[in-house]
Amino acid sequence: LDAHAEAAARARQDQLTKPPGALGQLETLAIRLAALQGRAQPQVEKIHIAVFAADHGVMAEGVSAFPQAVTAEMIRNFARGGAAISVLARTLGARLEVIDLGTAGGLADVPDVRHLALGPGTANLAQAAAMTAEQLQAALAAGRASAERAAAAGAELYIGGEMGIGNTTAAATLACGLLNESPTRLAGPGSGLDAPGVNRKIEVMQRALDFHYPNLCQPLETLRRVGGFEIAALAGAFLRCAQLGLPVLVDGFIVTSAALAAERINPGTAEWFLYGHASAEPGHQRLLQALGAQPLLQLGLRLGEGSGAAAAVPLLRLACALHNDMATFAEAGVSEKL
Amino acid sequence: LDAHAEAAARARQDQLTKPPGALGQLETLAIRLAALQGRAQPQVEKIHIAVFAADHGVMAEGVSAFPQAVTAEMIRNFARGGAAISVLARTLGARLEVIDLGTAGGLADVPDVRHLALGPGTANLAQAAAMTAEQLQAALAAGRASAERAAAAGAELYIGGEMGIGNTTAAATLACGLLNESPTRLAGPGSGLDAPGVNRKIEVMQRALDFHYPNLCQPLETLRRVGGFEIAALAGAFLRCAQLGLPVLVDGFIVTSAALAAERINPGTAEWFLYGHASAEPGHQRLLQALGAQPLLQLGLRLGEGSGAAAAVPLLRLACALHNDMATFAEAGVSEKL
Repeated sequence: LDAHAEAAARARQDQLTKPPGALGQLETLAIRLAALQGRAQPQVEKIHIAVFAADHGVMAEGVSAFPQAVTAEMIRNFARGGAAISVLARTLGARLEVIDLGTAGGLADVPDVRHLALGPGTANLAQAAAMTAEQLQAALAAGRASAERAAAAGAELYIGGEMGIGNTTAAATLACGLLNESPTRLAGPGSGLDAPGVNRKIEVMQRALDFHYPNLCQPLETLRRVGGFEIAALAGAFLRCAQLGLPVLVDGFIVTSAALAAERINPGTAEWFLYGHASAEPGHQRLLQALGAQPLLQLGLRLGEGSGAAAAVPLLRLACALHNDMATFAEAGVSEKL
Repeated sequence: LDAHAEAAARARQDQLTKPPGALGQLETLAIRLAALQGRAQPQVEKIHIAVFAADHGVMAEGVSAFPQAVTAEMIRNFARGGAAISVLARTLGARLEVIDLGTAGGLADVPDVRHLALGPGTANLAQAAAMTAEQLQAALAAGRASAERAAAAGAELYIGGEMGIGNTTAAATLACGLLNESPTRLAGPGSGLDAPGVNRKIEVMQRALDFHYPNLCQPLETLRRVGGFEIAALAGAFLRCAQLGLPVLVDGFIVTSAALAAERINPGTAEWFLYGHASAEPGHQRLLQALGAQPLLQLGLRLGEGSGAAAAVPLLRLACALHNDMATFAEAGVSEKL
């Protein structure tokens, strides 16, 4: 982080025509962006959104309110422009890329989608490692490549999204492994399980944690055993963003589990994270707490796709506009505090 | 409110390619806007922001962290484009009008400012009625005229802002009168009082409430006795917006005190209110509770000027874009919930 740019931004905020601190998180956000971007007047115009999609073997345990086919169907919907993240990206003028890491049915070439096909989804994490070592490396590499494309295109902010029916089970199990927490603390309804469904999910997660114990001590191995292709790709993307000095706006529950994995794999990575929103998925609070995160929005969103991060982008832009364009007390001839 | 448009919007939300309810407040916001605007596909492109400014006689009691001259100085800053609300209005493409209702020093013609000059600020509400009956009527009329200009220009949303050194004391006293609450519950630091300053403010408010008792039973009379020119103008604007069917995005503490006054003067007015943010000013929670409000943002803002409402505008626009532009399950060929 650039301490000089941060100090200059902080000094500027104190001279703008408003009571000190009166713009709250919009002030701290502008100062943080200045530190991350290494310029006293930050900007968030060019945004790269990558949505990583994949299927999950744990769907054999009946852990989702939606059928597995929806993963592939939504990949087509992203590409055609009909999904929430498609609309948000368009509205924000952000670049959207869709990366298919492998679905159960396989997916013929969809225009504007990168197909990587690491396999027909992960293995069932309740009774096997979700990924082979090769699959894990390929997923991490897919994320790194996305971050590199973003940086090469001059992106000023990176947003990672995800799609994968069953992936709240993987994310919650991963979070349990990383935080040594109980499934009851981190399981939630996901896309819409009822109470018996959540109980079933808790039971599946507990079986997975029992099966993989005592191999959940290293974050990378935990990611391989109970993560998912898209979750590993997100972790790879975030690790690379931090190396490239590209700020990341973190989305909801699943993306935050990947963010936590990235921070545990390479401590310091989280310095590059901003947090878009607090999800309605109950386990998200625990993940945010583990990362010391103060998300911008609390709107009860629980969609994924990167939508909660995208929804917060206008606040970053307004924070920059206020920081860069407001008059100082001296410029405006306004008296300061008594 | 248009029940037909509301039902149509609700039905549409249930068909969009996302788990039901997964967009949280962005869904309820789109449905609410549909009901308010009387169309199944709402829109918030044309926005009218009016900032009402005036001085306060209660400044004789030493209730602010800033000198009184700042009211007039900020009026110039609004007009020149250097204030937070100026930057926000520009960034949002909103129309901004500035209405000077009367400052202590008087203010020669400032370009792009409407000068109404109801007096050199209100009287000291701790020892007199803040306004004469004529001043109250003139302030209400100024607000009504602003709402009418907005509607005539085709505005789809109205935002009222305020500027007036000392006006958190007036707003908090007004709130005490309307809610029969104690000053300790509603007084706060405003633009930056320290703890002894807040205690002094509480003492001044209590003296005012004692002085005006028992004449605080009618909301209009309460507004006249302990309000302010800009607060009365905001109430007048909101009353007229509701009559014209123009949705209002309510700002922070002072504006919400005016919104509550409007609702008490003409019950039902609040049907037309949306709430931009929860202010850092502690008394705001009590006002929001009285109005049953669920504000969109909680960012620790406490600037006024309408800035907290303006900061929430992009969320309204994103809610509309998602509602209007996402594909349905049928259109996208996506399977529905099991």
